[in-house]
Amino acid sequence: MTETINVKNIGLRGIIVADTRVSFIDGDKGILVYRGYRIEDLAEKATYPETAYLLLHGALPTSGQLADFEKQLQEERSTIPSYVFDSFRQFPVEANPMDVLQAGIPLLAMGDSELADDSREANVRKAIRLIARLPVLVAAWHRIRQGLEPLPADDSLSHAANFLWQLHGEKPSEKMAHVLDTCLVLHADHTFNASTFSCRQVVSTRAHIYAGVAAGIGALSGSLHGGANAQVMKMLLSLGEEKNIAGWVKRQLESGRRIMGMGHAVYKTMDPRARFLKKMAVQLGREVGEERLVDLSLQIEQAALAEFEQRGKTKIKPNVDFYSASVYHLLGIPSDLMTPIFAVSRVAGWSAHIIEEKTGEAQVKPALYRPKAEYTGQYCGPMGCTFEPLGRR
Amino acid sequence: MTETINVKNIGLRGIIVADTRVSFIDGDKGILVYRGYRIEDLAEKATYPETAYLLLHGALPTSGQLADFEKQLQEERSTIPSYVFDSFRQFPVEANPMDVLQAGIPLLAMGDSELADDSREANVRKAIRLIARLPVLVAAWHRIRQGLEPLPADDSLSHAANFLWQLHGEKPSEKMAHVLDTCLVLHADHTFNASTFSCRQVVSTRAHIYAGVAAGIGALSGSLHGGANAQVMKMLLSLGEEKNIAGWVKRQLESGRRIMGMGHAVYKTMDPRARFLKKMAVQLGREVGEERLVDLSLQIEQAALAEFEQRGKTKIKPNVDFYSASVYHLLGIPSDLMTPIFAVSRVAGWSAHIIEEKTGEAQVKPALYRPKAEYTGQYCGPMGCTFEPLGRR
Repeated sequence: MTETINVKNIGLRGIIVADTRVSFIDGDKGILVYRGYRIEDLAEKATYPETAYLLLHGALPTSGQLADFEKQLQEERSTIPSYVFDSFRQFPVEANPMDVLQAGIPLLAMGDSELADDSREANVRKAIRLIARLPVLVAAWHRIRQGLEPLPADDSLSHAANFLWQLHGEKPSEKMAHVLDTCLVLHADHTFNASTFSCRQVVSTRAHIYAGVAAGIGALSGSLHGGANAQVMKMLLSLGEEKNIAGWVKRQLESGRRIMGMGHAVYKTMDPRARFLKKMAVQLGREVGEERLVDLSLQIEQAALAEFEQRGKTKIKPNVDFYSASVYHLLGIPSDLMTPIFAVSRVAGWSAHIIEEKTGEAQVKPALYRPKAEYTGQYCGPMGCTFEPLGRR
Repeated sequence: MTETINVKNIGLRGIIVADTRVSFIDGDKGILVYRGYRIEDLAEKATYPETAYLLLHGALPTSGQLADFEKQLQEERSTIPSYVFDSFRQFPVEANPMDVLQAGIPLLAMGDSELADDSREANVRKAIRLIARLPVLVAAWHRIRQGLEPLPADDSLSHAANFLWQLHGEKPSEKMAHVLDTCLVLHADHTFNASTFSCRQVVSTRAHIYAGVAAGIGALSGSLHGGANAQVMKMLLSLGEEKNIAGWVKRQLESGRRIMGMGHAVYKTMDPRARFLKKMAVQLGREVGEERLVDLSLQIEQAALAEFEQRGKTKIKPNVDFYSASVYHLLGIPSDLMTPIFAVSRVAGWSAHIIEEKTGEAQVKPALYRPKAEYTGQYCGPMGCTFEPLGRR
């Protein structure tokens, strides 16, 4: 037998499985960097296309490079083959948008003439296609399920603004577009989270980038991962009439239930992204006159932190989902599109990781991920259990 | 910092990540068991539905249980909602069948009224739906891309026979149906292979079974995994006129190229499944008068084993893909449907593993798989690299 290391049933927590140059987290200090740049700097100073360029290419773009990149995004978002939406029109209107989005990825693969070209350059072009087109798929599905026609992209609008336009059929204010753009920057990558690992694991078999991204969307849909923002929204909406928030929080924790959007696998202090999202939620809530929602969030946070402190769990803080739910809600985004929008952003990071995995840029040699399991089932020795014929069972 | 274990860049080879009761491999001795039963016994004595039942339930069915199970499969294969094929009709006819199949899984999810029910019982029903319906999707796509209508399932036919009927529009001989059924038994599970790990990893976020299976299909499509059988077929077809096979094998190895279908990550002796597939290929080749293809395979095997022996690599043997390609070809299956048929079989194993992962049947507590990576990229200290504004880059 080959030498084995047993790290079973801990979900690979703390197990270093690869090198990466894409991003880095120090969970104790609350630091997140993309390609060396702090998330705070990027959220304040960079746009989402600039950030996506950084993730894919490893360096910030010059003005010329950024203009080119934005032009490519514009071109790709306007040229989705019509069979994609014709297919969407067949789907049941009650379909979960994450299932629609997962189906949409192989649909895009079918029309990609560069599918068989696995060079870095071709994969970057495919990544740009994915980044440009995911928001269009989400918006188009939302229109189609309401019996409306998908709207054409507007070349005068930025990546974020165009998404809100294609979703709502109304040009967003600059403020709204900027808030969404910042959300997209904040969610664009997060090193080896569950969905990114799915992407890398799938393409480690030499599957194409679309196969990897479709897997990432599957992982993201889970309620322990990207699905959490929709869960937070559900919680906030269900608390609409609740007066005694502190009492509700106490009862939740006393009965062993979780407060959605609190705590993180990696951060043991405030998630740097949550800080931004909180600020944006508070500002936006005031501006659109939805103080109730924001007050509710602030009250839950306050009550929860007090309860956690009493229980000695001082490391549980609001995570990225806690305030992003409110922000998205204030941008007019329905709860069931919140996780798809997470994907719209994260596809930049997924793509950067997929390309890194495929090219072996950060490591000696990419290896197909094939772990072992310990067999604890029925065993009757090397000859196997006796197979009784059907008639004698 | 939390304690870390560094096993980077080895693709988790030899790393035990979970307990499982589904299947067990002893790669040194060439042993594969499903739920305690040897693959040899199952291939000779059990049908694919019997094997799928075993994988899902952990015990062989009684006659009554098997009859019920087969009835459920029959019912599910006949009741695929029409929007699924209406969508397929929109796809470009040149689409890769693995992309079509990956898209087909969330399409099935959209019509599953039990999607939100995550109980074991509901997941077993969803698994039966998937097992029943995957072959119909593959056959329907093959018909649609030829401009033909999908054929209705035939209740008088077994799982394997009905697939050949829906694919070819001709009822297969008993012999042909039996050969395919045995192939499906042989491919139904293989413990923590890359695609099964993708399935488990995706549902560890609490994503639904369809999201997991779609990820598995993505991983299976890679040429280092399920895509290998199509590669073997390509090699066999390209050698059509080659007289000097031993010379070709020698040249391949001397120039550092691989012989497709040789060697396995786990087996260090003859893959027990390959033995069966070889026997079936030889028999079937004679019966349908395609000796050339089989002779070619035998010659490649012989020459390759001799070359490997000379090089001291005596552990490289034909793997499951080497002869399955010939068998599928002799069943009239086009090369680009060989990997989809692998999925048609493996979906039983994927489902059993997904259910195990979701219920925690084999382990203390299921944990979301979230590994770590070592950051080897640009780093400018905790304050991050200086963000130069766009105009100054």
